[in-house]
Amino acid sequence: MRNRLQDSDTILASTLVALALIFLSFLAPSVAVAQEVLPSWNDTAAKTRIMEFVKATTTEGGEGYVAPEARIAVFDNDGTLWSEQPFYFQLGFMLDRLKTLAPQHPEWKEKEPFKSVLAGDMKGVARSGEKGIMDLGMATHAGMTTDQFSKIVTDWFATAKHPETGKPYDEMTFLPMRELLDYLRANGFKTYIVSGGGVEFMRPITEKAYGIPPEQVIGSTIVTEYAIVGDVPVLKRLPKIDFVDDGPGKPSGINKFIGRKPIFVAGNSDGDYEMLRWVTAAKGPGFAMIVHHTDGDREYAYDRQSAFGKLDKALNEAERRNWLVVDMKADWKKVYAFDK
Amino acid sequence: MRNRLQDSDTILASTLVALALIFLSFLAPSVAVAQEVLPSWNDTAAKTRIMEFVKATTTEGGEGYVAPEARIAVFDNDGTLWSEQPFYFQLGFMLDRLKTLAPQHPEWKEKEPFKSVLAGDMKGVARSGEKGIMDLGMATHAGMTTDQFSKIVTDWFATAKHPETGKPYDEMTFLPMRELLDYLRANGFKTYIVSGGGVEFMRPITEKAYGIPPEQVIGSTIVTEYAIVGDVPVLKRLPKIDFVDDGPGKPSGINKFIGRKPIFVAGNSDGDYEMLRWVTAAKGPGFAMIVHHTDGDREYAYDRQSAFGKLDKALNEAERRNWLVVDMKADWKKVYAFDK
Repeated sequence: MRNRLQDSDTILASTLVALALIFLSFLAPSVAVAQEVLPSWNDTAAKTRIMEFVKATTTEGGEGYVAPEARIAVFDNDGTLWSEQPFYFQLGFMLDRLKTLAPQHPEWKEKEPFKSVLAGDMKGVARSGEKGIMDLGMATHAGMTTDQFSKIVTDWFATAKHPETGKPYDEMTFLPMRELLDYLRANGFKTYIVSGGGVEFMRPITEKAYGIPPEQVIGSTIVTEYAIVGDVPVLKRLPKIDFVDDGPGKPSGINKFIGRKPIFVAGNSDGDYEMLRWVTAAKGPGFAMIVHHTDGDREYAYDRQSAFGKLDKALNEAERRNWLVVDMKADWKKVYAFDK
Repeated sequence: MRNRLQDSDTILASTLVALALIFLSFLAPSVAVAQEVLPSWNDTAAKTRIMEFVKATTTEGGEGYVAPEARIAVFDNDGTLWSEQPFYFQLGFMLDRLKTLAPQHPEWKEKEPFKSVLAGDMKGVARSGEKGIMDLGMATHAGMTTDQFSKIVTDWFATAKHPETGKPYDEMTFLPMRELLDYLRANGFKTYIVSGGGVEFMRPITEKAYGIPPEQVIGSTIVTEYAIVGDVPVLKRLPKIDFVDDGPGKPSGINKFIGRKPIFVAGNSDGDYEMLRWVTAAKGPGFAMIVHHTDGDREYAYDRQSAFGKLDKALNEAERRNWLVVDMKADWKKVYAFDK
């Protein structure tokens, strides 16, 4: 009798352990989420405000609750998710690409603004004005298929280095912002990039850099044309602007691509002003933040009327509109992942 | 001793039962998936080919395996997911809307093509040509904010009825195609609509009709403009075409919005031809299907050169390109959910 009972106990116990282990394996993801939130953010009001908003929108039954499918968060890219200094990284791509292509274009030696680019005369480039910059853009961004352009961009990111840190450009992302993306996603938010940059310049690296898939990247576009080349259908990139996703274009871009209003928006310049206003004017929850470049040691200190965009109107109205201004120097423990 | 053992057994047993119940609750979704697949499809070759493709793309280690994030499926809407007879439903919306607006536009009584619409003279409307149709489209689709338009469309769908079945338009969806959407999603596919129809005409109802959220609807767009009205930012719909998502525009639209090539595509007319070719020309897996309207009893029988689009080139090339032609009469048990 005793033996039978022992056996029975043993079977019960081992089954119990097996079941408990399986059961615990289902719990594992929740346990992982309990890690520290936003670890590269200092414990300042900025972090608190973000966390309070996320808590309110995700607390079922609370008055600020937002259903998961409506938790859309949009982020500017240049200067918000990664650096835009000492120049927009897409400009760096363009200049490198012009140098690569120059041997095939002997006529550029005598033709502005190409001549100035090849001579390293950036003032000369600037003198060519908006039309000149557009000519450079089209010479480097159009005239190939979408697949070819994607490869050109991917190859460039694999080798190009930031002129000051020597790091690959896709490591020049702001660690606290990547943590913020992760944190929002862990709370059921769908994260999008909404950038003035070219959408096909960003897409090859946004998954790796930010965990954002290509279909959640909104940006400026050029016209593409379906064509059959050697019996294979391709999309050709034409030298013609389709859509400029900047300033007042950003709300239009969001509406066109997403079709509903985000409840969270982050930007860093007046190019994001309209997007910030549009999101926070909605009835119901709407959170806006501005990344303020205050850290001249770890990154750059600039705002108002700098060489790289203005942060003037948005900064003036931030307090009145209850937009969070994140002070990079005071609010962030680290700027880049490679910071000590 | 005996009692203690009994107690111990009882505690163990009840804990075990509790754990087992919790454990089983995690299994429940998998059990639900085991229901019959594509129940409104007959057991013909069409169903088998679809299921074999899904099995191949989802079998880890198999040569046809596709990672979940790349499982993008795109569907034309008119004639593929819902009926397009006796006219495109968006045309029905336009005609109803013109009648609603007529009292505010006494000048329409004397002005073509409005005069013909109000007189019910569809031949007169047709005589006004493409420009006439465009005038009607802009009079009904532009001149309001995006929020206002969304409400107009939502209200119309809530009351308008199909002229022949008397059913609400959003119930005129093809049940086998809705099952196909569900089946693909249950297998990790992300489902999109890629339609020539207006994106803001479709978005208010695609979640309810198909389980497809607004951000997964790609369609034709008109230009929107950011404006401040009474200190509130809005987007105004301007009477200007932004993008026509039809024919060769469909691959461009997919590239613009999604940024990667789908592996599954469904269409029903030559307006989908370029999209079908583009998807199936890719290296690696690519499945294309054509919904062929063969059922004059339950729906309509038409192809080649019908009044509602051509299915000629795509049908001619289907066999050579290994595109599945779904015969609605032979392959579908039911067409609509309300069919007996």
